[in-house]
Amino acid sequence: MDKISLLNGVEDNHGGIVVNLMKVKPMTVDEFDSKLDVSLKAWKDQGKKGIWIKLPSELSSLVNTALKRGFTYHHAENEYVMLTYWLPEPPSTLPANASHRIGIGAFVLNKNREMLVVQENSGYFKNTGVWKVPTGTIKEGEGIWAGAVREVKEETNIETRFVEVLAFRESHKAVWQRKTDIFFICELEASTFEITKQDSEIFGAKWMPVEEYANQPYHAKKENEMFKLIANICLKRWQEKGYTGFSTVLAMNSSKGSLYCNADHANLLNGKPDQDSTLTSI
Amino acid sequence: MDKISLLNGVEDNHGGIVVNLMKVKPMTVDEFDSKLDVSLKAWKDQGKKGIWIKLPSELSSLVNTALKRGFTYHHAENEYVMLTYWLPEPPSTLPANASHRIGIGAFVLNKNREMLVVQENSGYFKNTGVWKVPTGTIKEGEGIWAGAVREVKEETNIETRFVEVLAFRESHKAVWQRKTDIFFICELEASTFEITKQDSEIFGAKWMPVEEYANQPYHAKKENEMFKLIANICLKRWQEKGYTGFSTVLAMNSSKGSLYCNADHANLLNGKPDQDSTLTSI
Repeated sequence: MDKISLLNGVEDNHGGIVVNLMKVKPMTVDEFDSKLDVSLKAWKDQGKKGIWIKLPSELSSLVNTALKRGFTYHHAENEYVMLTYWLPEPPSTLPANASHRIGIGAFVLNKNREMLVVQENSGYFKNTGVWKVPTGTIKEGEGIWAGAVREVKEETNIETRFVEVLAFRESHKAVWQRKTDIFFICELEASTFEITKQDSEIFGAKWMPVEEYANQPYHAKKENEMFKLIANICLKRWQEKGYTGFSTVLAMNSSKGSLYCNADHANLLNGKPDQDSTLTSI
Repeated sequence: MDKISLLNGVEDNHGGIVVNLMKVKPMTVDEFDSKLDVSLKAWKDQGKKGIWIKLPSELSSLVNTALKRGFTYHHAENEYVMLTYWLPEPPSTLPANASHRIGIGAFVLNKNREMLVVQENSGYFKNTGVWKVPTGTIKEGEGIWAGAVREVKEETNIETRFVEVLAFRESHKAVWQRKTDIFFICELEASTFEITKQDSEIFGAKWMPVEEYANQPYHAKKENEMFKLIANICLKRWQEKGYTGFSTVLAMNSSKGSLYCNADHANLLNGKPDQDSTLTSI
């Protein structure tokens, strides 16, 4: 009998093995099963801990085989599924899957110090008559401030500059009944005035006095306390500059992300907010 | 020929169908394939948009079949994989998978105003001699402040109370080369003094003057600018109370999460920080 070769794996920094099958030639279920069997025995003998297999969509016929050998799902993205097997005694110390989704709400003020509000065609506020701040989800690899600027532009065509994060809210089990949503309320300064709404998502968009926004009957209802607190933070910020949020600091390596801290401190360190220099690099 | 019944799906709020197979009887690949075929035709005729199939690990033999019919992976967790199919013309407006992982660093001060520092047995700082703040990853469904308190307890056995978020840092492509990590620097106040380190993860742990921490040679290197900025924020906070972070607000529905805003404003709204009341509910 020919000797069966091991699956081609790379050691990681935590005593584990990563098998990346994204660019391998197709293999049959039987071939994969034999290789997996001898590989697992070898890795166990070597005292390996966490085993990772990254399987492209094209090899989805092998998923079942790996699960039968003791693997479990770890995470998946459009083009692949990641499987893991913790060889030693439990508990496993394998890092968890991505656990959060990040959203933004944009508190946009124009030169008249009115705020930008919208009504949406779908979702929670559909047909309620409630005027809300533009909201959206941060894309994979996108910065919070950059996502806020993008969403406002997409929904209303208003150009803005990021000023500060005013507050953020955690909502547990908000996504797939298990993942947490963190929603950042960002203050932005409008540099254009003419609204052109995006028709598919947005039912209406206009400039509104901040007090009128905060005083909508919706905010007075007990179950909407979280929204009222957020509206009050916007109002507080509008009434006086005494409310300080978190702004971005210009760091050498800010193309890989930003540091957000107390805006006074950020100004001290910066001279200027960092998005001016990194907007085009994201 | 018998009429093939459709897969049992539930309409969602966005014109789509959710097929949950978590608790169905096992079915053969052929049976699933026939049902999927007639179901997809019916849903197309009905003008349905996004189709979701939640497949438990036990039914992993069906993954390949669904992908052949045009489904793609959306996300996966230990016990299931979620598959999606966008029936109309692109672009799909299906919501994205979880995109972020959330970490914390804990700036813990004792009554002598010294800070808690650790050295780790593995990871980036192994064998570097660098003293760092205790760090960790927020668990699924856990609040930021609660995770900070938990990590400090696990690593050093020190009991703490959450005070404020001092700053946060985004690092893009930090997880699986694609997901963003957001790292919250939290100030905590120690209520105990005796350190008992957790041996498997922690090499050393002690109380250190804040200036000594900030002045470690590591922080002077150019490539460590982000760490230096963070150390400077801790130092600034320690030197004067003029640095204000974000604290939590006690809201009616805070068991589902917290609102974090400027600490002065939070104190005004609260009277007290909200974790006192929700610690046991998480």
